[in-house]
Amino acid sequence: MGRPAYAAVDWGTSSFRLWLIDEDGTVLSERRSSEGMTTAASTGFAEVLESHLSALFAPDGIPVIVCGMAGARQGWVEAGYLDTPTLLSAILTGAVSVPGQKRDVRILPGLAQRSKQAPDVMRGEETQLLGAIAADAHGEQIVCMPGTHSKWVRVVDGVVTGFSTFMTGELFDVITRHSILSHAVTGAEAMPADADALEAAVKAAFDQPALATSLIFGARAGQLLHGLTAVGAQARISGTLIGAEIAGAILNVGKGTAITLVASGRLQALYESAFHILSLPYQTIDADAAVRRGLSAAAKAIWLNDERRSA
Amino acid sequence: MGRPAYAAVDWGTSSFRLWLIDEDGTVLSERRSSEGMTTAASTGFAEVLESHLSALFAPDGIPVIVCGMAGARQGWVEAGYLDTPTLLSAILTGAVSVPGQKRDVRILPGLAQRSKQAPDVMRGEETQLLGAIAADAHGEQIVCMPGTHSKWVRVVDGVVTGFSTFMTGELFDVITRHSILSHAVTGAEAMPADADALEAAVKAAFDQPALATSLIFGARAGQLLHGLTAVGAQARISGTLIGAEIAGAILNVGKGTAITLVASGRLQALYESAFHILSLPYQTIDADAAVRRGLSAAAKAIWLNDERRSA
Repeated sequence: MGRPAYAAVDWGTSSFRLWLIDEDGTVLSERRSSEGMTTAASTGFAEVLESHLSALFAPDGIPVIVCGMAGARQGWVEAGYLDTPTLLSAILTGAVSVPGQKRDVRILPGLAQRSKQAPDVMRGEETQLLGAIAADAHGEQIVCMPGTHSKWVRVVDGVVTGFSTFMTGELFDVITRHSILSHAVTGAEAMPADADALEAAVKAAFDQPALATSLIFGARAGQLLHGLTAVGAQARISGTLIGAEIAGAILNVGKGTAITLVASGRLQALYESAFHILSLPYQTIDADAAVRRGLSAAAKAIWLNDERRSA
Repeated sequence: MGRPAYAAVDWGTSSFRLWLIDEDGTVLSERRSSEGMTTAASTGFAEVLESHLSALFAPDGIPVIVCGMAGARQGWVEAGYLDTPTLLSAILTGAVSVPGQKRDVRILPGLAQRSKQAPDVMRGEETQLLGAIAADAHGEQIVCMPGTHSKWVRVVDGVVTGFSTFMTGELFDVITRHSILSHAVTGAEAMPADADALEAAVKAAFDQPALATSLIFGARAGQLLHGLTAVGAQARISGTLIGAEIAGAILNVGKGTAITLVASGRLQALYESAFHILSLPYQTIDADAAVRRGLSAAAKAIWLNDERRSA
C-alpha cells in the first residue's frame, strides 16, 4: 500500500464520495457524505472538498479528479458534454480544470446525445461506463446502469454510439409516494419480497410495454379484487417499470446480446432477477468499483504518464 | 318542461354534482360542489345530499339515483361490482338501496374485471358508458373515457367484454409536480399549447411505447440541449403518456375500429388531437351529457315503468 497519489470524487446531486488512491489504484481511505451538488452550491464546493481532504490528512497539493453533477451548469465549474458518437477514451482527456484552487482539480465531462427525437444527457454514469468496460474492447457492448434515472448505453468497438435514460427509479418513487397507489404499498418495506408478483409483472410489461400504466393500476385493482398484499403491489409496480424499461432498452438490440449490469445492493438484485426472468444473458460489475476505476483511469491519463507507470 | 321526477347524482372522490330531471329526461336545475366522497365520509352523505335537494326546493319524497364513489366500500353504502363479461343493461337494474332514508335513494354498481393478469375496476364510468352507447347497439364498440384514470372499454353486442385503466392523468400530475421534470414545465400554464411537440410525442410513444419513460426524460434533455420551452416540455410529457395509452388500448383491436370518446373541455381537445395525429376514426360524446343520460336511463328503468311512460 503506497502513498496517496490522487483523490477521486464522485459528486452527485445529493451525495459526495471521496477516495484517496495510490499510484497502483489501491483505495487507501474513503469519505461519504450528503454534501451533494445541491448542498455544496450554497456552502461552497472548495470548502466541502477541502474539509474531507483534511479529515483524511491528504498530502498537500494532491490532485483531485471529479465526476458527476459538480460539472453541471449549476454545479462548480461547467464541464460540458462530449457528443455521441464519441470514443469512450475521449472522456479520459476531456476534463476541465477548476481555476483558482490550491491544488489541481479537474472535472470530467458528461455525455450528450443531441438528436431532436431522442435528446439525452448523462453526468457521472460516463465515468462508471469507463470503469465498467475496456476502452479498447471490440464488438458491441450494452451497459445497463440502473438508478433514479437508469442509463442504457451502446458501445461498439470503443465508440459510444448512443444511450437512453429511463426514469424508472424516480417514477417508482413518485408513484408510490404521491399517487393513489401510495395506499396500495403502505407497510411494504417491512415485508419480504414477493418474487411471484415481480416475475409476473416483469414478464407482462416486457411482453406488452404499451400496457405499462394499466398494469401498475392493477396494483390497486388487485388489492380490491384479489387481496394482493402491499409487498405484492410494490413488486407489481417495480416489476412493471423495470420490464418496460428493458423492453425499450433492447428494442434495437438482439435479445442475445450480453448486457453488462453496473449496479450494487438492492438494485443489483432486482435487475439480476429481471434478467433471469427474461432469460437475458448478463454479467454484473459493482457500481462503486466501476466509478472508482473510471476515475482512476482518468487520473492516470492526466497525472501518471506512461514512463512513470512502467517504471 | 315538467315537474322534477327524480334527482340524479354523480358522486366522485372529490366532486358532487346533482341534477333535478323531469319525466322526459330534461334537466331542470343543477348543483355542483366539492363535497365528494372524501368530504361526505366525515360530514355525512345524507346531510350533503339533503342540503343540495333543499337548495333546489326539490319535492318531498323525490327519488335519487346515484353513481360513483358513494358506492365504494369506503363510501355511503357499498354497491358492489358487476363482473365482466356483463350485459351493459345489467347496470340499469343493479342499483343498491340506501336504507333508513326518507326517500328512495339507489346507488349504481361499478364494474370489475377479475382476471389475475389484468385485474381492473371502475366506478362512475360505467354510468357514462351507459349514456354514451345504446345498450342494444350491435357490433364492436370501443369507448375511451380519459381522465385521472383513463378507462377504455370494449362492448360487443351490448356485452361489456373487458376494460383497461391507464393512469395517464395522475401520472402527468405526479410527474409534473413531484419529479425532476417539474422544473422543465415551470410556467407552462401561462403559454399557448405547443402543437408540434404534442404531435411528435404522441407519434413517438404510439410507435414505440416501450420507450415511454425514456421519451419523457427527453423533456429535460431537450431543454438542456435544444432550448425546449416549458410548454414544449409539458406537451412532450402529456403527448408521450397519451400516445402510449392509445397504443396499449388498441393493442387487441383493429386500427380501423371507431372509438367513442367520452370527454369534455381540455381533455376532449387533447384526445381529439391525438386521434387526428394517429389517423384513428372517432366520434365524441360530451362527458357530462353521458353521465346524466346514464343516470336517467337507470332512473327510468327503476321508477318510470313502461305503462306510465307510454301513457
